[in-house]
Order: sequence, then structure tokens, then C-alpha cells
Amino acid sequence: MSQYVFGVDIGGTTVKLGLFRAQGDLLDKWEIPTRTEESGSKILPDIAADIQKKMEEKQISAKEIVGVGIGAPGPIDSQGVVHRAVNLGWGVFSIKDTLEEILKIPVMAGNDANVAALGEMWKGGGQGSNDLIVVTLGTGVGGGIIVDGKMLTGATGAGGEIGHIHVEDGETQECGCGNKGCLEQYASATGVTRLAKQKLEGSSKESILRGGEVSAKTVFDAVKAKDSLALEVAEEFGRYLGNCLASIACVVNPEAIVIGGGVSKAGEILIDFIKPHYEKNVFHGSRDVKFSLATLGNDAGIYGAAKLVLDTCN
Amino acid sequence: MSQYVFGVDIGGTTVKLGLFRAQGDLLDKWEIPTRTEESGSKILPDIAADIQKKMEEKQISAKEIVGVGIGAPGPIDSQGVVHRAVNLGWGVFSIKDTLEEILKIPVMAGNDANVAALGEMWKGGGQGSNDLIVVTLGTGVGGGIIVDGKMLTGATGAGGEIGHIHVEDGETQECGCGNKGCLEQYASATGVTRLAKQKLEGSSKESILRGGEVSAKTVFDAVKAKDSLALEVAEEFGRYLGNCLASIACVVNPEAIVIGGGVSKAGEILIDFIKPHYEKNVFHGSRDVKFSLATLGNDAGIYGAAKLVLDTCN
Repeated sequence: MSQYVFGVDIGGTTVKLGLFRAQGDLLDKWEIPTRTEESGSKILPDIAADIQKKMEEKQISAKEIVGVGIGAPGPIDSQGVVHRAVNLGWGVFSIKDTLEEILKIPVMAGNDANVAALGEMWKGGGQGSNDLIVVTLGTGVGGGIIVDGKMLTGATGAGGEIGHIHVEDGETQECGCGNKGCLEQYASATGVTRLAKQKLEGSSKESILRGGEVSAKTVFDAVKAKDSLALEVAEEFGRYLGNCLASIACVVNPEAIVIGGGVSKAGEILIDFIKPHYEKNVFHGSRDVKFSLATLGNDAGIYGAAKLVLDTCN
Repeated sequence: MSQYVFGVDIGGTTVKLGLFRAQGDLLDKWEIPTRTEESGSKILPDIAADIQKKMEEKQISAKEIVGVGIGAPGPIDSQGVVHRAVNLGWGVFSIKDTLEEILKIPVMAGNDANVAALGEMWKGGGQGSNDLIVVTLGTGVGGGIIVDGKMLTGATGAGGEIGHIHVEDGETQECGCGNKGCLEQYASATGVTRLAKQKLEGSSKESILRGGEVSAKTVFDAVKAKDSLALEVAEEFGRYLGNCLASIACVVNPEAIVIGGGVSKAGEILIDFIKPHYEKNVFHGSRDVKFSLATLGNDAGIYGAAKLVLDTCN
């Protein structure tokens, strides 16, 4: 009998779904809209209906399904209980119990960034490592810590929230979380853009960034063209992120660090700005770490969700 | 049949041993010298001989022993392999295999600070919590992270080395690890003494510390007497430690933080200096954390070692 698993990644606008063989081959992937109306009460029933439809279409019976893994944007504890997910309209309830009741199939759930980290460990840039820091540089900075092959979930599902580590006492602007000086304010796509705009406004230095669109992409394109202002921005970005990763590594002693998210599209050059600061400040026992780029892109979530349920229910 | 377990804590000068019932009652504890000569090759045979002597004395058979847990000062991975322990003269070898070969009883080993953290979780200041940061403020700053009831060991056994998190860019003096600006330089007993001496030398402010012995103890005694220079030192200590614990908490999302080591003898007042900085900088999902003091003192290591082997072999 074949064994299958579903991996589901719930985002603010779309839900990504994947059907995998238990060995990890992705057989099919697709998306449905995330209906956040009515406190997001339609999201899980929508997912359940869609999974049942796919099972019918592929002629897969419930017995052949190991389980359904779910990643969602919010703190989700190790029992599969979400503690408020603002983007989805969710309060506090068990994702696991709710979906199991409809589907009669084992369900496991976790925070989307943590689940994506598990995906990168399983089939992406972190393959071969059981102890991993995955940092996702997108609109914000997300993180997932893998300890001994498992997600670090934490007491209330807020493990791996490395974007909100305090890295700058002198910051005057507020982060989205309400604090000031979070890593996210310097190392996200938004953060890199902000640093570049500050430098452009604060000096009259020539730069190919002047007058054009300023984004993480244009900044790192300018870095590749050896634009000196852009290099200063990249240096600052690398200092904040490298130092912060060194602190995290003192705590978790990783084998590898994987960098993903939109900013990571700049490529290996990113690592050149991060690694020297990391190596300067990290404890020697964690100095010898492999840096690599994430490879699964937007599929990391469905891969990780599949892995989560395989680890628990297989 | 009764079930027993030995907990062993290897230090640079003495080895502490404890005989426990499997439920956790400490029946007997004693010490033997640590013989570090000949690359520390006598340490494990000494421990084995002593355990066999104790079993004879108490008329306990090997069948009644769940196992022997060991904590030692150095990076020890999850397989029980030590990767150099300078204080003991040890290179790289399996503590587990070496001792099992002599005793024919299951053995588990871990880093002493991580093992002590496990002890505080089991029977000390962290009871009731499964996700824990334990920070030990002694000559240095040691740490142990408990995730879901287990020690965070890391890829090479250097997990929880929080004393070497970089917290100050402006530092000119070197830490014992070779880096500059490690937490240990500000939050250990040595660090507090150093901060106080710097303040005494750098100002002519009156202080009851002038002319007398300056140590972490006298500094916190002066804090209790509302000495304004000592209060400045405590404030600085609390800022470094509180901020750093906030960063660690963003990574591991603990339920509780336990403070131990010699400096913690100052009592609850210590927490008053740490907590405001912690709460100011931590991510809101980890703000609601219980701070407490360690309660097992020097016995944390033998308790934790016993727990380590019980978790694995019971």
C-alpha cells in the first residue's frame, strides 16, 4: 500500500497545499484562497474539503494517508494549539483537533517559519544537518531553529522569533512588534531599503541608487556593481545579521545556517557580508558552521508541514 | 526490585557523586579527587571503582541500576563523546563507551552546565517547566537550555554557551575565550568585580566599597545598603544580562528563567535589576516568563546527571 502525506502552508491571502509520497516526493501542489472573513472560521473547513476532493480525484483512501501537516502564521505550541494569528483572524484553539475532527486523519501543526525551516532541513539548503538555524529575510525577518532534527517550538510556540532580537539601542523608529531596534529593522527587505534611504538622505555621496527605485534588490544589484554607498548598506546589514547569528549560535550550536527569503535572491554575495561578523563574535565551539542559501523558495512550508506530520505519525 | 541511579559531576579538582532512587530521592552523596595527571586517563576508572565500591557497600546489584549519568566541563555531544576538556586534560573520546566498558551499566554524559540545568528543572528552581533557560553566574557565566524537557546539546556539544554571547562592541579587554565583549565579562562574579573596580577608579564618588574588598558579594551587599556607586554597577550588570536573556528568549521561548551560581546568593534583588531590561527588549510572545533562583546549589550537577540517564535508559 502506498503512503501519502499532505503538507499545507496557510498564508494571509493563499493556502498552499502539497501532496507527497511518504519518502518525500512532491506529487502535486496547488493553491486555494485564504478566506479570513468570520474570524477565519472557514479556513480549516476549506482546507479539509479541498484535501477530500484531491483524495477522491487521485483515488487515495484515508488509510493510505499518514497525516496532514499544517504551517500557519502565528505562535502554535507543540500540541497544535494556535495562540492568536492576527493575519488569519484566529484566536486560541486547537488546529490539530479541529481538522482531525473533520478529516479523521492525523494532523500536526506548527508556526509557518519553524515549519519552513524543517522543510529546508529535509529537502532544501539544510539537508544533511540536524542542528540548524534558518533565517528568512522577507518583508520581515522570520526564523526557525532545528534542534536534533526537530523544530524548536518553545513554551507557547514563539520559538525562533529571531527577527525580534534587540540589536540596536540607538534606534528611534518602532518595529512592527512595538519594540525598537529589532533585527528585522535592519536585515529584512524593508530594513535594507530603510538603511539605504537613510544613507541616501544623510549624505550627498554619489550612488547609482539615487533617483531610482530603492529596494533590497536594487541595493544588492548596486553592491554587485561596487557602488560604494550600497556597499556601506550591505556592510551594515551584514554586521547586524552576522552578530545576531553569532549570538543565536552560542545558544543553539548549529551545524549549518541557511539563509532564505526574498533578500537571499541576491545570492552567495550575501554570505560574504554576514560571515566575517559571525566568525568574529561567535564562541569558538560554534565557529565552524556551514552557511548556505535556502533552495525550496515558497515550497519550504509545504515540505516542512509534510515532514512535521511524518515525524510524528509515521 | 528497587531501582537506583548514579549522578556524577566531574569538576577540575573534585568529582561529586550521588546515589539516587529512580524517583529522584538522593540517598547518599560524596566526593573523590579529580586526578587530572596522565591526560586525565585515571578520572573515569576512579569513578567506576568508586561506584562499584558503593554498590558493594549498599548491596546493590548491577541489575538494580538504571544507569550512570555524567556531567563534565567541556563540549559533549548527544552520543556522549567529549570534544576536548582542557581542565581535565581530555582530548576527544567517548565517555559513554569508556565507562560502559568498565561498569557494564548504561552511561549517559553531557556538558556540566547543561546537565546542571536539567537538575534545576527536575528538582530545583525550574520545577514545573519544560522550557527553561538556566544561567549560572560564577567565576564565568555558564548556561543550560532546556527545550521540551531535554538539554539543548547542539551539533558539537557547545549548546547553551551563553556566557560567550557578544554584548558589547566597545570592550577593549579580552574574555577567556579570546573574544572581546562577551556576557561573561559583565555578568559573572569576576565581571561584576571588574565593573565595580572600573567605576571606583573612574570616579571619585563616595562608596562604602572604597578601601575594602571588592567582590560580587560586597557589591551586592553595598547595593542592599543603597550605595549609589554599587547601584550603578548592579544597573549595568542587569542591563547586560537582562538584554542578553531577552535575545535568548526570542530564540527559545522559555517558560521560566532560573538564575544560579555564586552571584545568585545575593537573592531576589538580582532579579529586580535584570527583569526590567528583559521585559523592555523581549518579543511580546516571550514576555510572560517566570524568573526564579536556582535552589540545588552545587548538587544541581549530580541531580541533572541522574535525570539525564533516567530519561534515556529508563
